[in-house]
Amino acid sequence: MKKIFTLLLLGIVMFTVSCKNENSQTATHKNVIEHSDPLPSWNEGKTKEAILTYVNDVTNSESPNFIPIKDRIAVFDNDGNLWSEQPAYFQLFFAIDRVKEMAAAHPEWKTQQPFKAVLENDMTELAKQGEHGIIKLVMATHADITTDEFDADVKNWIATAKHPTKNVAFNQLVYQPMLELLQYLRANDFKTYVVSGGGVDFMRAFVTEIYGIPEEQILGSRIKTEFNYNNGNPVIKRLPELDFIDDKEGKPLNIQKIIGKKPVFSSGNSDGDLQMMQWTASNKLKSFMLYVHHTDSIREWAYDKNSHIGKLDKGLDEANEKGWTVINMKTDWKVIYPFELNAN
Amino acid sequence: MKKIFTLLLLGIVMFTVSCKNENSQTATHKNVIEHSDPLPSWNEGKTKEAILTYVNDVTNSESPNFIPIKDRIAVFDNDGNLWSEQPAYFQLFFAIDRVKEMAAAHPEWKTQQPFKAVLENDMTELAKQGEHGIIKLVMATHADITTDEFDADVKNWIATAKHPTKNVAFNQLVYQPMLELLQYLRANDFKTYVVSGGGVDFMRAFVTEIYGIPEEQILGSRIKTEFNYNNGNPVIKRLPELDFIDDKEGKPLNIQKIIGKKPVFSSGNSDGDLQMMQWTASNKLKSFMLYVHHTDSIREWAYDKNSHIGKLDKGLDEANEKGWTVINMKTDWKVIYPFELNAN
Repeated sequence: MKKIFTLLLLGIVMFTVSCKNENSQTATHKNVIEHSDPLPSWNEGKTKEAILTYVNDVTNSESPNFIPIKDRIAVFDNDGNLWSEQPAYFQLFFAIDRVKEMAAAHPEWKTQQPFKAVLENDMTELAKQGEHGIIKLVMATHADITTDEFDADVKNWIATAKHPTKNVAFNQLVYQPMLELLQYLRANDFKTYVVSGGGVDFMRAFVTEIYGIPEEQILGSRIKTEFNYNNGNPVIKRLPELDFIDDKEGKPLNIQKIIGKKPVFSSGNSDGDLQMMQWTASNKLKSFMLYVHHTDSIREWAYDKNSHIGKLDKGLDEANEKGWTVINMKTDWKVIYPFELNAN
Repeated sequence: MKKIFTLLLLGIVMFTVSCKNENSQTATHKNVIEHSDPLPSWNEGKTKEAILTYVNDVTNSESPNFIPIKDRIAVFDNDGNLWSEQPAYFQLFFAIDRVKEMAAAHPEWKTQQPFKAVLENDMTELAKQGEHGIIKLVMATHADITTDEFDADVKNWIATAKHPTKNVAFNQLVYQPMLELLQYLRANDFKTYVVSGGGVDFMRAFVTEIYGIPEEQILGSRIKTEFNYNNGNPVIKRLPELDFIDDKEGKPLNIQKIIGKKPVFSSGNSDGDLQMMQWTASNKLKSFMLYVHHTDSIREWAYDKNSHIGKLDKGLDEANEKGWTVINMKTDWKVIYPFELNAN
């Protein structure tokens, strides 16, 4: 009951914020209120200024940098860029919770890795299982069910699971300043996309509501699928085999496959986003590359070059070298999460 | 010069039609003019009536069948559904023309099939080479170049090539009644998609202008691609290897991968579209399945059960059995192509 209350409250806060923003946008467009602020959770400074200057420039039909609406494609990584990704990608917590749910039907998991580690809450051992172990976990928990069943599983999980240290629902750990940025770009006729290494159907089950981005504008990693006519009640079954990893070179490749044109605005937080940044930077239209640098060990987490998750090394060097915009989370963001708005 | 004039003229006709439609839509919405017609190139009858009744029903917020805007996904096959496909898929003519252009650099093609058949204009021999031969042609003409180079090749071809018997540019052989249907659906907040067995990048190079459908709403077959940093000027190279065939079961699978939700409106003309129809028909929201039956041997072509191209056999049986709407091209359409509007 308390959870429902909290969720409702969050809903109200987000709704209020969203309405405020929409009003701000209208005001900006009409020049009625000169000082309305489309990015209220961003501190004043060169990062915020760079974003506003870019958007004002490329949406001004008299600017030499004007971008036609059809080409205003903005792509955003998800983990560590629109929501947190520590102490592990949130999708891994889903897989872990699913293993525990499914364990009764799989007695063999008590002695098989990586399942044994999960069931014994032995995260050190799980980490030792490496990428191979993670893929095994994903296949066991994300496949051999229909797309509808998987969607229901994820929706059920996101409504009930809690982050291990923050102790709030995972979907509360989205970045308020980024929600404002998405809204600001859409108010200026940008089409906003998620382009994530995470599973596309995992994200689709809940992020459309949080980010205001429809299912068809979410790109991610995929497993193979199979169509089954099923006596007139067709289903699509998820198979335990990787189809596409939407990371590094995979990001521009997937963007080209699915969107079919180069973005003008790209936002990410790790080296896995670098090729997407490079692809965007090569647009003949004026483009904007935005890196989130995790610098806030108190309100969020601080990590970059040496992190296993969300490693930002070459990307940061290239951003500095090429003058891309880098968000210093600690100093650029007034609040991190929407629920902090309530506390202020 | 004459061609430029013809193209310009076509542009003007289409623009005029488009404006007329937009006015009609506005009138319909406002109920200002009761008898405005959003589908002027469709004869009155049960096909047109079925389309209008469906759209009026599902867009009426007081109807039990009301569909929220975010779920108004309409998918259209391309070859034989939005433009003609006889005497061969138009993309094959592109491949043939490219082989002839590239032949000087490939002296070995004089003795190698299927290139020999193409260079000798021996269509009987080319047909004998079958699917394997076609794939060889496609790989030789659609790969080993960058996405930008391929896009330029297609644009150049569509601007200059002519249909072998109709003797007009291929992009003039789109169906006027379907252009009106696309426009009518969009005016009612449907998101219109192309879901075709044809190559996605081939279509993207020119159909967005003709159909008013942006690149990101075009799904099709794909070859594999590779990202190359290219010393800071990144390119995506097309590789001579199939990635995905967007036909039969591939259509619902690709729809789920890329759009991520079930369509409510599906339009096709062959058995290759049947699984997409079945998938759409299984939507819990009220759905509409529309088959084009090629019955007009004079103005277009007449073919169905026994055709090699665009075979419509099981699909027609299932449409009749399940009460899906079937367009009788000969009697339902006043005109086939936009240029006939001029002649009337």
